[in-house]
Amino acid sequence: MIEDLVDRLRLLRTPGIGPVTFRQLIARFGTPAAALAAVPDLARRGGGKAPVLRTTAQAEREIAQVEKLGARFVALGQGLYPRLLAELEDAPPLLVAKGDLNLLDRQSVAIVGARNASAAACRFARGLAYDLGQQNLVVVSGLARGIDSAAHDGALASGTIGVIAGGIDVFYPPENEGRQRALYEEGLVLAEMPPGTEPRARHFPYRNRIIAGVSSGTVVIEAAPRSGSLITARLAAEAGRDVMAVPGSPLDPRAQGCNQLIRDGATLIQNAADVVEAIRLPASLVRAVRVDYEAPVEALNGDDALGLIEALLGPSPAPVDEIIRLSGASSGAVQMALLELDLAGRLERHAGGKVSLRSA
Amino acid sequence: MIEDLVDRLRLLRTPGIGPVTFRQLIARFGTPAAALAAVPDLARRGGGKAPVLRTTAQAEREIAQVEKLGARFVALGQGLYPRLLAELEDAPPLLVAKGDLNLLDRQSVAIVGARNASAAACRFARGLAYDLGQQNLVVVSGLARGIDSAAHDGALASGTIGVIAGGIDVFYPPENEGRQRALYEEGLVLAEMPPGTEPRARHFPYRNRIIAGVSSGTVVIEAAPRSGSLITARLAAEAGRDVMAVPGSPLDPRAQGCNQLIRDGATLIQNAADVVEAIRLPASLVRAVRVDYEAPVEALNGDDALGLIEALLGPSPAPVDEIIRLSGASSGAVQMALLELDLAGRLERHAGGKVSLRSA
Repeated sequence: MIEDLVDRLRLLRTPGIGPVTFRQLIARFGTPAAALAAVPDLARRGGGKAPVLRTTAQAEREIAQVEKLGARFVALGQGLYPRLLAELEDAPPLLVAKGDLNLLDRQSVAIVGARNASAAACRFARGLAYDLGQQNLVVVSGLARGIDSAAHDGALASGTIGVIAGGIDVFYPPENEGRQRALYEEGLVLAEMPPGTEPRARHFPYRNRIIAGVSSGTVVIEAAPRSGSLITARLAAEAGRDVMAVPGSPLDPRAQGCNQLIRDGATLIQNAADVVEAIRLPASLVRAVRVDYEAPVEALNGDDALGLIEALLGPSPAPVDEIIRLSGASSGAVQMALLELDLAGRLERHAGGKVSLRSA
Repeated sequence: MIEDLVDRLRLLRTPGIGPVTFRQLIARFGTPAAALAAVPDLARRGGGKAPVLRTTAQAEREIAQVEKLGARFVALGQGLYPRLLAELEDAPPLLVAKGDLNLLDRQSVAIVGARNASAAACRFARGLAYDLGQQNLVVVSGLARGIDSAAHDGALASGTIGVIAGGIDVFYPPENEGRQRALYEEGLVLAEMPPGTEPRARHFPYRNRIIAGVSSGTVVIEAAPRSGSLITARLAAEAGRDVMAVPGSPLDPRAQGCNQLIRDGATLIQNAADVVEAIRLPASLVRAVRVDYEAPVEALNGDDALGLIEALLGPSPAPVDEIIRLSGASSGAVQMALLELDLAGRLERHAGGKVSLRSA
């Protein structure tokens, strides 16, 4: 059982508190309980209304629900949480997991691609997943149609993780219910959203960051330009992981995304040996480890900094480092002011540690 | 008319005098006539029999033959000779050309590939050649079956050069006679061998160095592993030119050579725009220019160096630079000794400026 799970859930499920804000609150206040106590005051100082905190009863209801589903929580900073995933700035503070948790402790490779992939590409994905399984690699994908399904099928016996955009008990697409149930039994399914959540378009990029984040590298097969698979590839690259792509004829429109990835620097992959060669990350770096909370910093009086920081921010995203430099304030004071604006619903956080003021 | 053409031909067609030896003789003695006069003595000093020099009558016969065929000679170091080709250490001292010589003065790209290419790949090659022609690029290939033929066809109207392994009047493969005749009329055909020469297996790598050498870059389409197209790609890379390859599915065995090239660093090409982007060489560097002979160096007494150099050489190829360093002799003296051994038939020249003693 995760210590302080109720407080974690109350904090995390409170509207307006995303993974980055959660992590910064913990870094600042040490425990979810202390963060919960501080949030209303922080939001008011940031010039907004205090967010409506999730109640203990709501958190306990979700915990009971997850237990009843035969699933369990995996928490950032504690035992089983995958080390590579924890490296992400926006690592999910809590995951709901159902299946064989030992798979989180092995090195993994993501295989993603088109939902409407050709039969040949699906056959290739299944064979590649099987061969990677023989190399003791866990295959991660998104339980979607096409390439994802083929990858899970190929690696079912050796170890596969399906990361889904909705709740742990929601089957999407519906025809993949059997496959998802097979992963409950023989593999592992991970979800970031609470049970019962139907996946919406905006959930998929979040799901993709988990696929990329948990894996040493991501292999893309038959991705259309501007597809979700290319987002996963970009997230993998941003996380410093290997991006690999399977080429195709320029005459085949479904090969365009992968060919472009290779032009942009992804490693061309023809078989499992190529993947193994590309992934230079030693398995020892992948093992889950307990990461203790960062020590809480001394409480700061942010009053002075807040006005200054607010004046420095505008509607276009600016790097936090730049705000710190321009303000002349300490990094701690600036982070606190940003947290206050964030909890007041007045701050927008962007990729690459950039922030902007939300238009009123 | 090329000055001293008779002497050039006599020297070049003498058995045992290849392009590298020819170039070194000219560098040393200034003119083909002076080189011809020096060869017997050099060979004797190198410890061999004097080669049987081609006669003036033989040279004049070849000149008359080329004229009768409506072709002409293009000589290294003179007006029309392509500047990029002249950069090769083993640039052909003379080419026989038939067709539109103006094509030698424009920037060109080679397209090479499998003789037994798929219909789809041939269609792609034809389209790519056409599109490159619209970008004012001349398309160079080898007048072989498959990709070569398709590339010539696509660029026939805009400008294409066929480099053949046999004599300028020999059609190989026979079914390409019509295509070669079309290039006489609308494009250009280049040959290194004398008229009437039937191409043999050993001629093709020499032909390939001209294809790669004359071009700013080489595009490979559907090449089998260990095929001639990959040799052309390697020669292009060694000459510092762009190597480009069209990818294919790993499930298609004909794509393996190209996919491997891309893994090894070749640029992945999907269309003419990709080729134009890859070729960074400005057209101004491609224009043919007159390159004067290097000034003849002072005649050296090589007697002393020769014995020493011979002792330093063995059956395995060694870099000339190393021989110079180990010998302590001047570069000029070492080169002269090597030339003597060469003309005596006792030296073997290898790629990358390496030399070895020929086993007796």
